[in-house]
Formats: sequence, C-alpha cells, structure tokens
Amino acid sequence: MIHDTRGGLEFAVADLGLAEFGRKEIRLAEHEMPGLMALRREYADTRPLTGARIAGSLHMTVQTAVLIETLTALGAEVRWVSCNIFSTQDHAAAAAVVGPHGTEEEPRGVPVFAWKGETLEEYWWCTERLFDFGDGSGRSSRSGHRLGPNMLLDDGGDATLLVHKGTEFEAAGAVPAAADDDPEEYRIILETLRRSLAAAPGRWTEVATEIRGVTEETTTGVHRLYQLAAQGRLLFPAINVNDSVTKSKFDNRYGIRHSLVDGLNRGTDVLIGGKVAVVCGFGDVGKGCAEALAGQGARVIVTEVDPICALQALLEGYQVARLDDVVDRADIVITTTGNKDIITADHMARMKHQAIVGNVGHFDNEIDMAGLAAVPGIRRITIKPQVDEWVFPSGDGHRPGGHSVLVLSEGRLMNLGNATGHPSFVMSNSFANQVIAQVELFTKYDTYACEVYRLPKVLDEKVARIHVEALGGELTRLTKEQAEYIGVDAAGPFKPEHYRY
Amino acid sequence: MIHDTRGGLEFAVADLGLAEFGRKEIRLAEHEMPGLMALRREYADTRPLTGARIAGSLHMTVQTAVLIETLTALGAEVRWVSCNIFSTQDHAAAAAVVGPHGTEEEPRGVPVFAWKGETLEEYWWCTERLFDFGDGSGRSSRSGHRLGPNMLLDDGGDATLLVHKGTEFEAAGAVPAAADDDPEEYRIILETLRRSLAAAPGRWTEVATEIRGVTEETTTGVHRLYQLAAQGRLLFPAINVNDSVTKSKFDNRYGIRHSLVDGLNRGTDVLIGGKVAVVCGFGDVGKGCAEALAGQGARVIVTEVDPICALQALLEGYQVARLDDVVDRADIVITTTGNKDIITADHMARMKHQAIVGNVGHFDNEIDMAGLAAVPGIRRITIKPQVDEWVFPSGDGHRPGGHSVLVLSEGRLMNLGNATGHPSFVMSNSFANQVIAQVELFTKYDTYACEVYRLPKVLDEKVARIHVEALGGELTRLTKEQAEYIGVDAAGPFKPEHYRY
Amino acid sequence: MIHDTRGGLEFAVADLGLAEFGRKEIRLAEHEMPGLMALRREYADTRPLTGARIAGSLHMTVQTAVLIETLTALGAEVRWVSCNIFSTQDHAAAAAVVGPHGTEEEPRGVPVFAWKGETLEEYWWCTERLFDFGDGSGRSSRSGHRLGPNMLLDDGGDATLLVHKGTEFEAAGAVPAAADDDPEEYRIILETLRRSLAAAPGRWTEVATEIRGVTEETTTGVHRLYQLAAQGRLLFPAINVNDSVTKSKFDNRYGIRHSLVDGLNRGTDVLIGGKVAVVCGFGDVGKGCAEALAGQGARVIVTEVDPICALQALLEGYQVARLDDVVDRADIVITTTGNKDIITADHMARMKHQAIVGNVGHFDNEIDMAGLAAVPGIRRITIKPQVDEWVFPSGDGHRPGGHSVLVLSEGRLMNLGNATGHPSFVMSNSFANQVIAQVELFTKYDTYACEVYRLPKVLDEKVARIHVEALGGELTRLTKEQAEYIGVDAAGPFKPEHYRY
Amino acid sequence: MIHDTRGGLEFAVADLGLAEFGRKEIRLAEHEMPGLMALRREYADTRPLTGARIAGSLHMTVQTAVLIETLTALGAEVRWVSCNIFSTQDHAAAAAVVGPHGTEEEPRGVPVFAWKGETLEEYWWCTERLFDFGDGSGRSSRSGHRLGPNMLLDDGGDATLLVHKGTEFEAAGAVPAAADDDPEEYRIILETLRRSLAAAPGRWTEVATEIRGVTEETTTGVHRLYQLAAQGRLLFPAINVNDSVTKSKFDNRYGIRHSLVDGLNRGTDVLIGGKVAVVCGFGDVGKGCAEALAGQGARVIVTEVDPICALQALLEGYQVARLDDVVDRADIVITTTGNKDIITADHMARMKHQAIVGNVGHFDNEIDMAGLAAVPGIRRITIKPQVDEWVFPSGDGHRPGGHSVLVLSEGRLMNLGNATGHPSFVMSNSFANQVIAQVELFTKYDTYACEVYRLPKVLDEKVARIHVEALGGELTRLTKEQAEYIGVDAAGPFKPEHYRY
Repeated sequence: MIHDTRGGLEFAVADLGLAEFGRKEIRLAEHEMPGLMALRREYADTRPLTGARIAGSLHMTVQTAVLIETLTALGAEVRWVSCNIFSTQDHAAAAAVVGPHGTEEEPRGVPVFAWKGETLEEYWWCTERLFDFGDGSGRSSRSGHRLGPNMLLDDGGDATLLVHKGTEFEAAGAVPAAADDDPEEYRIILETLRRSLAAAPGRWTEVATEIRGVTEETTTGVHRLYQLAAQGRLLFPAINVNDSVTKSKFDNRYGIRHSLVDGLNRGTDVLIGGKVAVVCGFGDVGKGCAEALAGQGARVIVTEVDPICALQALLEGYQVARLDDVVDRADIVITTTGNKDIITADHMARMKHQAIVGNVGHFDNEIDMAGLAAVPGIRRITIKPQVDEWVFPSGDGHRPGGHSVLVLSEGRLMNLGNATGHPSFVMSNSFANQVIAQVELFTKYDTYACEVYRLPKVLDEKVARIHVEALGGELTRLTKEQAEYIGVDAAGPFKPEHYRY
Repeated sequence: MIHDTRGGLEFAVADLGLAEFGRKEIRLAEHEMPGLMALRREYADTRPLTGARIAGSLHMTVQTAVLIETLTALGAEVRWVSCNIFSTQDHAAAAAVVGPHGTEEEPRGVPVFAWKGETLEEYWWCTERLFDFGDGSGRSSRSGHRLGPNMLLDDGGDATLLVHKGTEFEAAGAVPAAADDDPEEYRIILETLRRSLAAAPGRWTEVATEIRGVTEETTTGVHRLYQLAAQGRLLFPAINVNDSVTKSKFDNRYGIRHSLVDGLNRGTDVLIGGKVAVVCGFGDVGKGCAEALAGQGARVIVTEVDPICALQALLEGYQVARLDDVVDRADIVITTTGNKDIITADHMARMKHQAIVGNVGHFDNEIDMAGLAAVPGIRRITIKPQVDEWVFPSGDGHRPGGHSVLVLSEGRLMNLGNATGHPSFVMSNSFANQVIAQVELFTKYDTYACEVYRLPKVLDEKVARIHVEALGGELTRLTKEQAEYIGVDAAGPFKPEHYRY
Repeated sequence: MIHDTRGGLEFAVADLGLAEFGRKEIRLAEHEMPGLMALRREYADTRPLTGARIAGSLHMTVQTAVLIETLTALGAEVRWVSCNIFSTQDHAAAAAVVGPHGTEEEPRGVPVFAWKGETLEEYWWCTERLFDFGDGSGRSSRSGHRLGPNMLLDDGGDATLLVHKGTEFEAAGAVPAAADDDPEEYRIILETLRRSLAAAPGRWTEVATEIRGVTEETTTGVHRLYQLAAQGRLLFPAINVNDSVTKSKFDNRYGIRHSLVDGLNRGTDVLIGGKVAVVCGFGDVGKGCAEALAGQGARVIVTEVDPICALQALLEGYQVARLDDVVDRADIVITTTGNKDIITADHMARMKHQAIVGNVGHFDNEIDMAGLAAVPGIRRITIKPQVDEWVFPSGDGHRPGGHSVLVLSEGRLMNLGNATGHPSFVMSNSFANQVIAQVELFTKYDTYACEVYRLPKVLDEKVARIHVEALGGELTRLTKEQAEYIGVDAAGPFKPEHYRY
Repeated sequence: MIHDTRGGLEFAVADLGLAEFGRKEIRLAEHEMPGLMALRREYADTRPLTGARIAGSLHMTVQTAVLIETLTALGAEVRWVSCNIFSTQDHAAAAAVVGPHGTEEEPRGVPVFAWKGETLEEYWWCTERLFDFGDGSGRSSRSGHRLGPNMLLDDGGDATLLVHKGTEFEAAGAVPAAADDDPEEYRIILETLRRSLAAAPGRWTEVATEIRGVTEETTTGVHRLYQLAAQGRLLFPAINVNDSVTKSKFDNRYGIRHSLVDGLNRGTDVLIGGKVAVVCGFGDVGKGCAEALAGQGARVIVTEVDPICALQALLEGYQVARLDDVVDRADIVITTTGNKDIITADHMARMKHQAIVGNVGHFDNEIDMAGLAAVPGIRRITIKPQVDEWVFPSGDGHRPGGHSVLVLSEGRLMNLGNATGHPSFVMSNSFANQVIAQVELFTKYDTYACEVYRLPKVLDEKVARIHVEALGGELTRLTKEQAEYIGVDAAGPFKPEHYRY
C-alpha cells in the first residue's frame, strides 16, 4: 500500500508489485514516446513549467505517466485523475505516485486519484480532488490561501466542466436541482458541486480566476469549448490540441486502429475475420476502426450522417447503410460518433445472438445502456470485468429462444476499458502537443483571450518530424530553388492552414 | 471535317467518326456524372448563367464535354481550350463542337480550340483564342466592341496567367524579353503576348475589366491565385474550387487512384505487382497513387518534405526515403508534388534498365526533361505516342552496357497523356463544384472582392449527397435531439471549418 | 503488307508500321520476361528443340512472340494461331512473322495465322492451318509426305480438340451432323473437319500419330485432357502446365489482378472505386479479380458454388451471395468460372442501367450472349470495338424507361479483348513452364504414356527463383543443419507434393 | 480446488472461480464453433465414438474444451494434456474437468493434466499420464489389464513421439543416454521413458498395439508422421488433418492473422503501425502474419528459402530479404517456419533497442533461446509473465550503451503464450476435421494401413459449408447442366485433388 501525504492527502492507489510493474512499463514506454523524450531534452535547462500547477484529467495509463513525468521534468507540480471510470491502469497509477526517483516506501511522484472501476460518485469525487493543491482543504497549509491549479490539461472536458459549472452556480447563488430527465451522471455532478459549495463558498470562482488556461485533446471536449467561447462564457483561454494534425489524424485514427482490435480481442476472443462489422461514424476514429476491422478480414458497413464522410467510406469500398437496415446482420457494432443514442435498446433487441457491441466515441450514451437495462425481463451476466452478456427474454415480440448481446465496458470506451488504450507511440504525438500547448499557455497566457486557439503548424510539423525520425523515415529537403518555386520556407511550414492532409 | 463559323472562327477539330463516337461516350458519361445532371435539373428553369461568357481552360475530355454542356444548359456561352498539350481527347473535342442538338454537318455545340498533341506554340495560340468571343478579331461583329469572356474557368491557371501578364505588360508599356534562364514555355508566352499587344493594344486590360471572376480547380493554380491576392495583384475575385472537400479529397485522391494505373497500363503494359514503386509526394494525389500501386501489389516507397505527410505514409505502412537513396532500386517512379526538379537527369542516369518515369503532379518540370535531353550521347526512341525510351550511353560514368528509362507523356500528366484522365464519376464531384462556383461568382460578383474564396461547406455536402445517393449509399439522419446534442443543424453542415476529413 | 511464302503459304498479317512497333514492344518485353531469357541462355548451345515442329494455339500477343522466339532459339520450327478471336495483337503477330533477324521486306520469323477480330469461321480455318507444316497442302513439298506438327502447345485445348475430333471422326468414317442444340461454334468445327476430311482422308489420324505430346496451360484445357485420359481416349502424352504453381498461382491470380482493371479501364473509363462489383467464382482468377477491384476501392461481392472457396472469400472480407439476389445492385459483374450460363439474359434484364458485364473465365458462354441477343426488342449499339451497349426495351416486364448493359468483348475474355492480356512478367512464369514442358516431352516422349503429367516441383522452384531474383528478392539459404532438421535438400524441393501455397 | 478421482488420479487444476468463468466462456464459444455443434447434432443418436478412449495432446484452451465435450458427446472417454507449456488456459482446463453436467464439487468432465507455465519435466510427466486410462498404475482397477488409449489426437506429435520412442527403446532393451548435443528437452524425454520402462516394462509396446490410429493437425507433426511412414516405422494409421484445406488454409492462415496481433498487443502494447516487421517464412502461417501486420500498418519484410513462396510474397507487395541484411532495421521479428535457428543470438545482438521477438512456428528453437541466455553479460528482466527483456551488455562488440530485446513466451508460441491462441470460429474448422477423422479411424481402422491419410475432399467441403452458412454466406448451386458441363457432381466435390485453393 502506497501512502503519499504530500499536500495533506492520504490515499492508496496500489500495492508494491503494481508499482514495480508500472515502473518497468513506463521505462519501456519512454522509448516508444520519442516526442515527449525530445521535449524533456529540449527543456532540460529552462524548465519552462516551473511554477505551473497542472490539474490533469486524462486516462491514467502508462503513456499518461510518461506525460506526467515530462510535465514534472519541465518544472510543473501536477495532480491527476482519469477521465473515464474504467480507463485507469492501476499499475500506471501506482508507478506515477512512486515517480521515477521514488521508492514504494518513499514515493516521490505525483498525487493520483484514480483506479480502474470507479463508481460515478467516486469519479466526480476524484475530479473534485484535482482542484486542491493545498492541504486537503483546498488551501495552502502554509499561507492558508486557496491553492488550486493554475493550468488545466483536459480530455473530454470534465475538469473544465466542473470549474465552469461551479462558477456558474456560485454566481447564481445555488446549485439547481436535477430535472427528471437529466442523466444520472449530471445528478451526481450537481450533488458534488452542492457539497463543494456548502463546504467552501466561492471556491470555484476563485479557482477559475487562477487558471491561466486549458489544453484539451478530444473532439467532444473541444466542441464544448467552442460552444462556451461562442456564448462568451469561456473563463480562460483554451488551446485545442485535438485539431493539431499530429493529434487528430494520428491518435484518433491510427491509435484506434490499434486499440479497437485489442479491446475486441481481450474482451471476447472472437474471430473478427469473416464477420459483418458495423462502424457508426466515419470521422477519424471511424476511419481507423474500419481499417482495423477490414485489416482483420471483417466485412465493414459504415453508418454516417455527413455525406462527405459517407462518400469517403463508399470510395474506400465500404457499404454505407443505416443501422436500422443492417442491425440484424451485424456481428459487431462499434460507435465512434461522439453523439448519443446511436445504438438503442431496440437495435440490440434485433441483433444476432451474441452480437458484440462497443463504443469508442466518447460518452457511454452512444449506446443506450439505460434503455437496455430497462428492457423488461432482460438479464445481465457478467462474463468477466468489462464484458457483460445481456440476455433478452424469449418471445413477446423478441426473438424466440432468446438471444443475448455482449456489451463491452458497459458502453464506455472499450479500447480503454477492455484493453490498454492507444499505444505509446501514437500518444507521444498527442502528448507532445499537450506539453507544447501547456508551455505556450502557461508562459504566454497574457497574450491570449478567452477564446479557443490551435497550435501553429510549424509546431505540428516539429512533432511529426521527431516521430518520422524515430520510425527511420528519411525526409527529403527542399532546395532553395524548390522552396522559392512553391513559395514556402525550406524549413516549413509547408502547407496552407486549410490543408486537410 | 467540322466547320464552325460562329463568332467568325473557322476551325476543324475532328472528322465524322470521332464526333459520333464522342457523342456516344458523352451519353454514357452523363449517367456517371450525377452531380452535373442534378444541377441541370435544378437550374432547368432559372438558367442562372444566361449572359455568362465563360472561357474554359481545362483538359478537353469526355467529362469536360459534360461540364461544358451543363454550363450551356444553364444559359452560358462557352469557349474552350485544353490546359495540357496531350490531354485532349479528340473525339470529345469533336463532340463538344457538334453539341447535343447539332449534327456533324450543322454543329451547334461550342467552339473548342484543342487537339491531342499540340506544340507549345499551338497551345498558347489556342489559349489566346479563348479570349475572343467576337468575330475572330476579338470584337463583336455586331457592335464592334471588344468581346471577351466575363467568366474564367481554369485548371492550372494558364488562362488566368495570360490575362494577368497581358494586363501587367500593357501597364508596363511593353512585353519584356525572355531572360536566358527562362523556360522555353515562358518564352512562348511572351511571344504570344507580344504579338497580341501589337495587334490590339490595351486588349488585356479591357478583357480583365469585363471578367467577373475565375474558378480554379488545381492545387497549383490556387497557389498562384493566393500569391497574386497576397501581392494585391489579383484582378478579379476567385473561387478556390480545389479545396472543396469533394474536390481535393476525391478528384485528387480517388481520381488518380484510378487513372495512374490506367496510364501505366496503357503506356507500358508492365506488371505493377512485385515492383518497387517510388511515389514522390504524399499529398492527396500521392496518397491516391500509393494506394493504387499497393492495390496492384507493388512495394511503395514514398518521398516527402513535409514531416506530417511523411508520418502519415509511415503509419500507412510505406517506407519513407529520399529518392537519391532508393533510385537505383526503383522500377517505377511517379511525381505528384507540384514542385520542380523532383526527378533529375542524374537520377535517371542511375535508374534500373527500363525503369518507368511518370508525372501526375502538375507541370512537366517535375521531371527534368530538358536536363535529360541534354545528357551527352543520350538517344530517344519513341515506342509509341507518349511513350519514349531514353537510352543512356554506355560507360563514361554511366552503367556499362547502357540502360534506358521509359518516360511517359514527355514528363507531362501521364494519367491524361497515356490514359483518359480521371473518370466521370470523380469529375462529377469536381465539376459540380465548378458549376456551383460559376453560378455563385457570375450572379453575385459584386459581393466579392479581389480575393480567393472557398465554397461554403453546405454546398460541399450537397455535392457529396448527390454522389452518395448515386452509389446507393444510405445516409443516416440525425434526430432533433441528436442534432441539438452536438450543436449542429440536422440538415448540416456537420463539421467545423477546420475539420480535415 | 508482309508476305511470307515459306511452306507455300501466303498470308498477310500486318503493315510495315505494325511490325516495327511490334519489334520494339518485343524488345522491351524481353527484359520483363527473365524466365524465357534465362532458358535461352541455358539452352543456347544444346538447342534441345532441334527437330521439333511446334503447333502453338495461344493468344498471339507480344509476350507470346517472346515465347515463340524462345522456342525457335532452342531449335524448333513453329507455327502459331491465337486461341481467341479477339486476343491477337496485330503488331505482335506482324513482328513474330518478321522475326528478330528479319526485315519487313524479308521476314524470317514464323508463320502466324491470327488477327484481332476473327470470325469463328476464320478462327477455325486458322487453327486448321496450324497442322500444316508443309506446302499448304499439308505435305512436304520435298518428300511429298504428310508434314504436320510433332508437338502441340495449347491454351484452352482447341488445337488438341481438333486433332482428337478429327481422329475420332476418321475412325467413325464420317463427321456427324450438328445437333439442334449444339452451339454455333461446334457446328463450325464440324464443318471445318468435314471439309478437311473430304480433302485429305486419314489426315488427322496421321497427324496424331506424329505428335509426341501436348503442353496445355489453362484450367479448362487441362480439365478436357483429364477427361480424355480418364476415358482412355487421349492420343498422346500431355503435360499439365496450368497446375505448375508458378503458373496457376501467378498467371491466373496476379495476371488477372493486373489485366482485369486494365480491360475495364480501356473498355469503359468508368470509376471502379465506390462501385458494387460482383465476381462470379473465387478460384485463382476470381481471387485476383476481387483483389484488383478491392484495390481500386470497389465493394466486392463473390458468388461461389464451392464452399471452401466461399469460406476463403468470407474470411478475406467479401460478401458471398447468389447473383440472383444481388444482380440489381451490381455496377460491374465479372465471370471467372470456366462454366457456362453464369450470367443469363434474365440477369442482365434485371441489372442497373449501364451495368458493366465482362468475362475472364474461359469461353464466351459464361455470359449467355445468345440469350441476350434473342431478347425481343433488344438493341445493340457498338460504342467502340469490343464495347457494346445492349439496350433493353422499356416496359413489358422490363424496367420502365429502358436500361442498357455494357458487354465487353462480346462475352469473350475481356482482359485480352479490351486490353492486352496478362503482362510480360507474369507470362514469363507461365511460358517458362511451357518451354520446359516442351523440352521435356519432345526429348523424353518415349518415357511418357498417354496420360496427363505435371512438371516436377524442382522445376517449378527453378522458374520461381529466376523471377524472384529479377524482382530483387533475396532468398535465404538453409544451412545443412536446418535442411536435415526438416528433412529436405538444401537446394529444394522444399515442400511435399500436396502443399497448396 | 477441484479433485477428480476417477481413474484413481488425484489432481488439481483450478479453483472455483476459474471453473465457473471457464464454463461461461465455453458456452459463448459453442456459438462460435458451428462445426463442432453440427457434428454433435449429426451424431447425437449414433454416438460413434462409444468405446473410444482418446488421448488428446493439444493446447488446453476454451476451444479445446468444446472439442473435448464434442468427443464425449459422441461417446468417447477422453484424457487431455496441453502440447505446449504456456498454452493452457487454466479456466478452460478447470471447466473441462467440471464438465457441462458437473459442478465444482462433483466434477463430471474429463481428466486434464495441464496448467499454464509448466516446467519441461512437468510437461512430459503430464504427457505420460495421458496414456493411463486405468487406476493411476496404467491398469484397469477392475480387470487388472493394461488400460491405455485406443486413439490419439495429436498436435505437434509429442504424444505420438512418446509411444514410438517407448516402443523403440523397449525393443532395443534400454533407453539410451542423451548425447552431449541433444537438446535439454530430449534429455527429459529419455528420463521420462527410462522411469516409465523401469516401472512397467513392455508398457509402451502394449499401449501401441491397442491404438487404432492418430489424427494430427500440425505441419510439424504431420512431417514427423510422413518420415515415420517412409521409414516403415509408423506403428498405427494416421490421418493428416493439417492438410485438410479447411485446416491448413484457415487455421494456419486466418487463425494466426487474428492471434499474432493479439499476442503482440497483450504482450507489449506497442504500436504496430509504422514499424518494420520481419516475418520469417511465408507459408500459410507466414501469410497470415504478414497480412495481420500490414493490416495494422506495419511495413512487412519477408524472409524465405522457398522461391515459390518468396515470389508470392513479392507479388503481394512485400520486400523479400535475408534476416541478416535487415535485422538492424526491424522493430518486430516473427518466426513462422517450423525450422530451427531462424533467429540466432547474433541476430538479436544486432537488433534495435527494444526490438520485439516472437515465434508462432512450432518449437522454441526457432529462436535460439539457449544461445541468447549464453551471451556473456546478458541480463534477463521479466516485465510480466511471458514477456522478458534481455539486456545486452554495452560495448565489447555490442552496441555502445547497451540495448535490449523483448522476447515473448520464452520463444514458444506467443499467440498462445501471450494471448489465447486462435479464436473459436477458426478452430471450429480444424476441430471439426479432427472429430471427423477420429470417427473415421476409430470406426474403420481395419481398412487403414500404417500410412498417413488425408480426409476426402467431400468432408472438407462439408466442414466449409457449415461455416459458410454460419457467416451468412449464400452458396450458389450448380444446375444439372452446369455440373455436367464441368464434369462434377452438383453436390461436390468440386475440385481435383491437386487443386491448391
């Protein structure tokens, strides 16, 4: 059991073996994360994050541990939670607490509030902890002042949401009651804030004031930020890391190409080849899913609302259909949309026996889990953690003889819940952008307004260059004449802003 | 021999059989171009291009004939040239002159100045003809006024170049002499303008004033437009059709996937499978080339200057190397860059015997044809039109025994020179954008400044939708709740402007 | 016009330009046919085919010209016909007549009876000519003896058929009348033989006696040979070249992967990507077709009768369905079966407008062309040679508004009729096996019975090795210990006879 | 802890939770194994294996449990061991002991001697146990007679080896001493037999006499059987199940396509995309590996000794090279050969840092593990079970700074050791052939000689048909006319014996 009492907290994330295993995995992962290691080397002397107090909400995996230790190597003080109840790798969490220079008896890493298989209450309790860089009361034990983060690093926007909602309700004077049709999770968020505001009135407003900015890396989280900015309600500047090309076109696509298959295999051991797999959504994540499934010999059918993405799917050789029309033929159905109610309980009632259902979009409402649980007579058999067989009753409008569907990770991100998420190399791209964005916002926050920004292309290219070299790729160099001919600098950037790659 | 004397011109593009064959091909192509046919139906009554005099410079193929007849169906008066000396399909040109309602004896189509295998002098003579909607003297035979186009439709920017250079030299008072190191083609352009200005002083300035705008569809042409706009020298508004998603991500990528292989096969009949193919550049065109070659079983090596594109190539499983390092191993080398001197004479001197060299980028200077022809002792054997074997001398720093390389289409676009260019369906996307852009600029030109614009995303999605339906794809519709959840209109557009597809 | 009077024949295959072009193409093709060139080097001194009179019936292409000249380089006297009415490349035929050492004025090549676009009568007239190595009367002008071939080289078995049927009818005393339901072509064969027997009674029996053996390279032709052998009616030994691995798994598969797409493109210029393509049959040819179409972005559906091949198709990610069930969804339908009535007139009546229909199996009866022509009210519009649009009448059980299908090469092998057949490199494998088999049978015919044989695996591996080296592949060598461990000779053969590759 | 005292044995394979989990997994797997379930239905009444005592040596996985329970459903008495020290899934073993009708307190399944992570001594002790169907002494407790198996079901031939070696040494009168250069494992086999013969002289000769035959399913095991038969030393008939098409072309290829990636992911979590992966061997297993790795975006290089397979690799677009020449560029190296010393210690000394090394061929000597362990100064760090980092010393002929390689499953089958082996559906094909072969040999053993046989093609097609239907494939049926035309029965078999698929 690891105890870490820095900051007045006492928590326990792991036993001895876990941390030791985690440190080994982190060491191996460092080699696969050349982007982060290059940044450590580049900033070894200047340590530009000195003074930064970073609250990070992002899947607590081995890769994230390498990110955390890059941030600390650049001078930051860090606290961490996972942004998904199933995505924590306990050995990674334990090892992050121990840190590169600590021991299990004397951990010298960072406080981590995360474990695999949190309840929603626990999840939001952890997220709230993130905002306390003090003694557990949210205040510095030394000065007695409120001590929260001055930077957020977010994945999906839950940390950002909490501080925005907290500030909003403080301004309103009270936390509202949940409406009848609010999702269960929102009820818990309100409860968390109600408790928080009771304990420390004005806390969130103070916290928000101190925050210099947030860097966010998901499509969903970025979407929320643009909405807030459009409404003039964004409380601090934001950098949209998701839309760095080396993030969205790599992590989203090539990461999922790897981890979707990994999650399916670890979860079910079912042959993918020869099966009919429906991929809902053909954005970057959907493209990666389709490629992965086709690469394993599945017949892939794509569903799309956007005609441009649909036309891409068709020209890649995939059938484009509506889920309604093909649901009774599918062996595997994967959601990638970031939207809700993509697979309904009615869809699942019409699926083949032992059809596999998983989500790699964002929230668990892509699959209507609540609706599924509410089907009269349905039974849930847990095969193993994160793999549930839901057995429909026989007859009464259902298939005679009954049938079941296999739902992965309770509808949450199955590539993280059933496997270990995206592999190190691809995350090295995304996280290098995160680190660069943190440095940018922390050191130059006064030049940014409360808007959403993207990193300049030249930094994107820098991240790419490191990873090309790590893979042994040899870049061609433009001659002076060639650079002039096409009107670019021979050192880049090479493309106009609107270029799509 | 077809004579068309409308406008005072007399020209001959085709014999009888050609036009008949061309009309058949146009009829078949119409079915494969649902985007254009949908626009004909949509605008059948309003005919919004009535009054437009469109000068088009774009490969004179069967697909282009369907474009031309769509423009005339919308009310426009049209004149046409090809934008490449080898890309004209003579039967398409003939059929465009005959027109859908004409006969070979009484053609009722449009004047076309283009044939397969023009000399450069002929090419620029044709391009100059484009600007004369009058009686051959550039003036209306009725009014005696200068009668040029009021709209340009461009591919590569040659028509745009001529009017800009003409105007520039008219302002300067004289056409400059060519510099010693100017390319041969520039010398011809200057000569063309010198002759033109002598015959009709002030002509280009007058012509430019009348032009409401240009729609341009290539990366290279658009690049020129942005440069002109940045220098404040753009003479009329421009719509960048190239960067409509349904153009750049479809025509550039899926068009070349089709026509690269077609050009290689018609040109050489050489097995692609098992061969080492180097693709220079991994933009949209390079991606399509690599996919096509890999799909035929070649081992593809990619060269790139841009680390982001290089990283994409690596993650798609391609080797990324410098041409210098792999040129002696390559069986096929294809340029896709839009830059110059990609394959030098020195590279070709080091290639394997009978290595195949082709360009699908833009201009013929991607391959240093001048340098090749200047190699001492080299011999050129024309195997058939657009296929030359260049035989290097033996010894003296060259491979003993001599070796040869096969150069397609003299270094010009081999997918057009050796085959028939992109197929109808993919061009239906590009050309639907062209037509929409022509209507937009012609009818609303007074709302545009002399800048470069892109079409709004909703029109992009409209073009895509037509083609999805034509392929039998079934689009999913967002429910009201889903649309609200992700904050878009259920009818689209579905993505933010910066989305990359 | 080329006149070749050797043997008393006078025929004309080509004009001057054709032969010159053909010689150039042959020279280029030699470099792509390392298997044949290696055999020329190996047998340069011994010339083991000296004394052989080889009658060859095989698509008269550029590649075949290299085969012919390899046979003559090894000492053989050769005569040639094409085994398909559309597959002759006239320039290749002309160049084969001129020969490597001849001129157009003084041809020194071999007699060739073949041109592109023969009628069936002409086809069988040509095939009959093949058996006359004499003065045109079938006899030596010197000795007056019957002078036919002593070796057959066959593709599809038509030459073999003629000599077997001739012998059979001679034994029976008469050529039977055609039955009412005999195909048109059989009627012509009977007529040819009736004429032949009238002119020279006993001719075929004499010819058959002289023949030392046949080497056959198609699935269909081999199938006929096994049937004859099983019935004890095979008149001479046969070597089944088709089932050399370097033939069936390369020519059939990788050859068609190349030439199917080539034929579709040259015939129709229609975008393959995004289309629904049905491949009838998933043997080696079907596998190559499916891979080619998928590689161009089509959605491929496979039809199969053999469950093993069907299971392979499924596990490669293809849908397996019956043509009946998907015919109204298909944009392209390709037959690869070697069976008959795969696509019926009824199927074509139910296809989409402008659906493309082609055959790469064996005979033209895979597509029921007779049935199609017999549809009441149907119209045939020839778009260009080997491309016909068949327009169905509107209504009356047909789709309202009428629809048409595009039939390639009149239902015959469209990869040869619409393109140039398999490329040189792949044919180098097949033809190297042919040459090896000819040498084997000609020199050791007395050790063979009237059965069907396959070449020993070690020769298969020899052919493969030459082509691996030509592609730059580096083979690993077994150590002595490794060879002993797996119980093979370090020089091969490496696999048991039943190994499937 | 499960105790099973039937047969006088007492052993313990699992705790309660394991068996329960195993039963759930078996239930799910049954749905994915339609071949076995169809055989259960077909033979439900006749129970043709009544009286059979089957000794099975085959990876003790969930799929194997379904096989075992199919054999018992057909009437057999069964005992089981794993044929690999790491491949047992303990939950599957436990569940097989419990059986479908037993409970953990009262197991009613079959005796299983297998657990994950056996030592070699334990492995051969288990294998010896397999031959005792009696009371633990090898004799019936009732009759006192020797009671061994009367059927063998083998994977890799270890059970067959033991009975052949035992018989051989009994005939020789003694077990020989191990030679100095015998592998460690052979020493243990000799020791096992020495002990066995001391305890029960003549036992193996008696056992062999009773055995009606063996069915074997690996390339390696079959190879041994053909060697024994060729030497006249095979003691009983054998059916080569490996070369049923539905085994070798499916299990070997599509099974590994699935499980290779699974093993790499579970073992290392390293991104496969963009990496250089060397696949040693391009037989069916190598083909599956290459496809899987390419499908995940790796650049695949193939090594081969057989030029035919090498040519296939080249035409599929893979580079073919020698391991020696590319070993310093590889990120992942996989052996698939069934031969030895494919990856030597010297190779590993030259690899990149953290290169991954794994074997999916057959024995662990494909990778020279003994040589690796013997490198002076090398250190082994176990990252987690079945994943070892071997750290080379720095300098002294090694790379400066030291480097390490990651070896999976100690060089044994990593798809089983690091993952769960081939998935159910593909094993359903292989195991259906096993069951059919067991029924055939058990019921008709007196019609078979001591040779190696293959199953007739019609049974192969039957197995395929079941699985085609399970995947929703629709087979086309030959008409009577079509069947006659190609000379086959409309019900199959459809291909000649030598057909290669």
